[in-house]
Amino acid sequence: MSTMDTSPSANGRGSDAWSRPWEHMYIDRPSPGYCRVTFDHPPINTITATTVAELAELVGLIEHDPDLNVVVFDSANPDFYLAHYDTEHDPARTAALPVGPTGMHAWLDLLVRLSRAPVVSIASIRGRARGAGSEFVLACDLRFASRENTLLGQFEVGTGVVPGGGPTFRLPRLVGRGRALEILLVADDLDAQRAEQYGYVNRAIADDRLDDEVDAIAERVARFDHHALARTKSYVDQVTLPADSEFPPALADFFETSGRPAQQERFARLEALGLNTDSDLERSLGRRVVEALRDA
Amino acid sequence: MSTMDTSPSANGRGSDAWSRPWEHMYIDRPSPGYCRVTFDHPPINTITATTVAELAELVGLIEHDPDLNVVVFDSANPDFYLAHYDTEHDPARTAALPVGPTGMHAWLDLLVRLSRAPVVSIASIRGRARGAGSEFVLACDLRFASRENTLLGQFEVGTGVVPGGGPTFRLPRLVGRGRALEILLVADDLDAQRAEQYGYVNRAIADDRLDDEVDAIAERVARFDHHALARTKSYVDQVTLPADSEFPPALADFFETSGRPAQQERFARLEALGLNTDSDLERSLGRRVVEALRDA
Amino acid sequence: MSTMDTSPSANGRGSDAWSRPWEHMYIDRPSPGYCRVTFDHPPINTITATTVAELAELVGLIEHDPDLNVVVFDSANPDFYLAHYDTEHDPARTAALPVGPTGMHAWLDLLVRLSRAPVVSIASIRGRARGAGSEFVLACDLRFASRENTLLGQFEVGTGVVPGGGPTFRLPRLVGRGRALEILLVADDLDAQRAEQYGYVNRAIADDRLDDEVDAIAERVARFDHHALARTKSYVDQVTLPADSEFPPALADFFETSGRPAQQERFARLEALGLNTDSDLERSLGRRVVEALRDA
Repeated sequence: MSTMDTSPSANGRGSDAWSRPWEHMYIDRPSPGYCRVTFDHPPINTITATTVAELAELVGLIEHDPDLNVVVFDSANPDFYLAHYDTEHDPARTAALPVGPTGMHAWLDLLVRLSRAPVVSIASIRGRARGAGSEFVLACDLRFASRENTLLGQFEVGTGVVPGGGPTFRLPRLVGRGRALEILLVADDLDAQRAEQYGYVNRAIADDRLDDEVDAIAERVARFDHHALARTKSYVDQVTLPADSEFPPALADFFETSGRPAQQERFARLEALGLNTDSDLERSLGRRVVEALRDA
Repeated sequence: MSTMDTSPSANGRGSDAWSRPWEHMYIDRPSPGYCRVTFDHPPINTITATTVAELAELVGLIEHDPDLNVVVFDSANPDFYLAHYDTEHDPARTAALPVGPTGMHAWLDLLVRLSRAPVVSIASIRGRARGAGSEFVLACDLRFASRENTLLGQFEVGTGVVPGGGPTFRLPRLVGRGRALEILLVADDLDAQRAEQYGYVNRAIADDRLDDEVDAIAERVARFDHHALARTKSYVDQVTLPADSEFPPALADFFETSGRPAQQERFARLEALGLNTDSDLERSLGRRVVEALRDA
Repeated sequence: MSTMDTSPSANGRGSDAWSRPWEHMYIDRPSPGYCRVTFDHPPINTITATTVAELAELVGLIEHDPDLNVVVFDSANPDFYLAHYDTEHDPARTAALPVGPTGMHAWLDLLVRLSRAPVVSIASIRGRARGAGSEFVLACDLRFASRENTLLGQFEVGTGVVPGGGPTFRLPRLVGRGRALEILLVADDLDAQRAEQYGYVNRAIADDRLDDEVDAIAERVARFDHHALARTKSYVDQVTLPADSEFPPALADFFETSGRPAQQERFARLEALGLNTDSDLERSLGRRVVEALRDA
């Protein structure tokens, strides 16, 4: 991976904001047109209220950087890209996250704005991305996955909750109704081969070539004419993005189903088995999620 | 395949209705959440007015069973899943089938209601499913097919009629315009590999593992929280199902094109070659359908 | 490939028009139901104002021929199916092409009318089809590609222009948002395997079998009942074709971005490297398009 001798501080508008310390990620700027965001929230890259607040701020920077053409999101942890959401036993903190510019809850808001941003966003996936982690990669424009080391899934229905961050609307438009229903209602993990076959990711790439191939794509796109790129994306957006109004009802259902007493018991069972830690449960969550159920 | 010690008669509302004798299928209830329907209408599982009436009744039971999460449809005949429609030389019987709750003809009505039912419907396909048989599997939520022993197709255009049970609206949303037009207008059979590649089925599974894999999926889903499952499916339904108003004009065209004198001659030629019997014609109908044409 | 003993002149209405001399293609009529158009515009089958005018005329013949069921488009040049658009240093000639019956510019008009014509159009692709060449194959109903010898792509964004002939609207409906954005915004070539995997083509066929397989499909479809075929296609059209109103804004953007002074410099650089000739640049245009950029 080559790096142009352009420091982030040389990139004009917004450069000070980019270089502030981030808690759950670090940011590299190989060239004015190319930004790389690496998730780094040990032990398993859970998404918390802090992650959401940081991503919301980051998307604002992405939207307004006139030099930027491409943003790559990868992970410092080879086993976990973004595990899933973790309320950290304080659901009120998540509920209190501010409404964003679209008028939607911060999580929906940042995903919707990332999808519409005038850049190419690329999820370079190595490790597990489930639940909200999968919702994040689905909001990116392109998805490339390590062939040997990727597990993707929406496990929510297996625990008793409705997935609320948009996969019910984004997956069908990528993989069709039948495969979307399988992913959402069977709620098991997909490996990279299956994810590629279904269209959940653009394609699987051998693990030892993933970083270089994604970097080459990003360096190429970084040099393109920004106006032509942004206008072309906007036409695809018009015919592929869900309407904003589709998202909020499913998120409301997520909060309602999460708040049921029976659901709290299910989450407690999973926590006792290792949820939110680098455990065997987390490594096999798609298969083992049924252990949340009472008669497991 | 394990079976929980819950007899159908213990399942509360509707249990008596489930256990009535069925003419063209038999029904097993491995657990309260899991129902298995096996098509059994020798010699080749054609769909007749009787089948339609029974399926319409069955869909009503599925819609109103509060314990049910998943219904698997398989076939007692390994060579024919559902051959296609057979008017049994009495088109009036089919025309006289009652309009269903949606206001549509019984066949469209039951397919539309199955697609929206608050359960996961799974077509476990072994053998041939063409014409109305293909229309049925397309109305199911998930489709798994025997890798070695599946032929799927919409042969209708090859005989001179418009496919009227919805594949013109469902296939493009699964496989895209180009592949949908090929299936409908070239009107030939697809084997399981091609069907998987195109997205006509979720995936092909080795024949000797098909029953166990589908059973494992069904047992898993049977244990899930019904409310979360049904709500999640309803969001996918919103963005993937054709509008009800799309269907009836194509069915009207099916009846109109079927009723033409030239068409009756084509059907008569195919009957003379073995249509509706366990014949070589039926086994190779996709390829041989052109023999219906005058200059064959 | 068999040929029925029906000469073009025996085909009734429009036969004289079909047999006129064509500059950039030749036309064969193996049977009343089957027409084959072979692109032949040395050295690399660029599309020019002349090609557009001829295709517009041809589409008019296709629309009104009551015997025709299927049109196959192939290429006399095994290395170039349709290279891309060439203004021949006279953009005014392209701008002056007449508005067609849909009220759109001739290029959009002929593509839209081909998609809706009451026949099956098949692109039998051998060699390169990029830019407007890709736009043409995307407007055909079915696409089959030589497995060993196909390169498809929309390279426009790599040169700084917005692709204006509809791929921003057609590709997402074939391959989904993620893969469409990759094709359009990474702007590189796809070989036949990748194009098949993504759904850009129906399927890849071994080069030495491509002609025979496409011919067999065409001969089959040529014999089908025209009314059933045309009605069935019209139902798929209703749910798969972009609205006419989607196209013109992107074409306006194409003209606007093409006309910028910076863009003229980029085209000049590519011309100096061999654009529009049978050059190494043209053979590797997807990869080498970045050489149009100032800092290449």
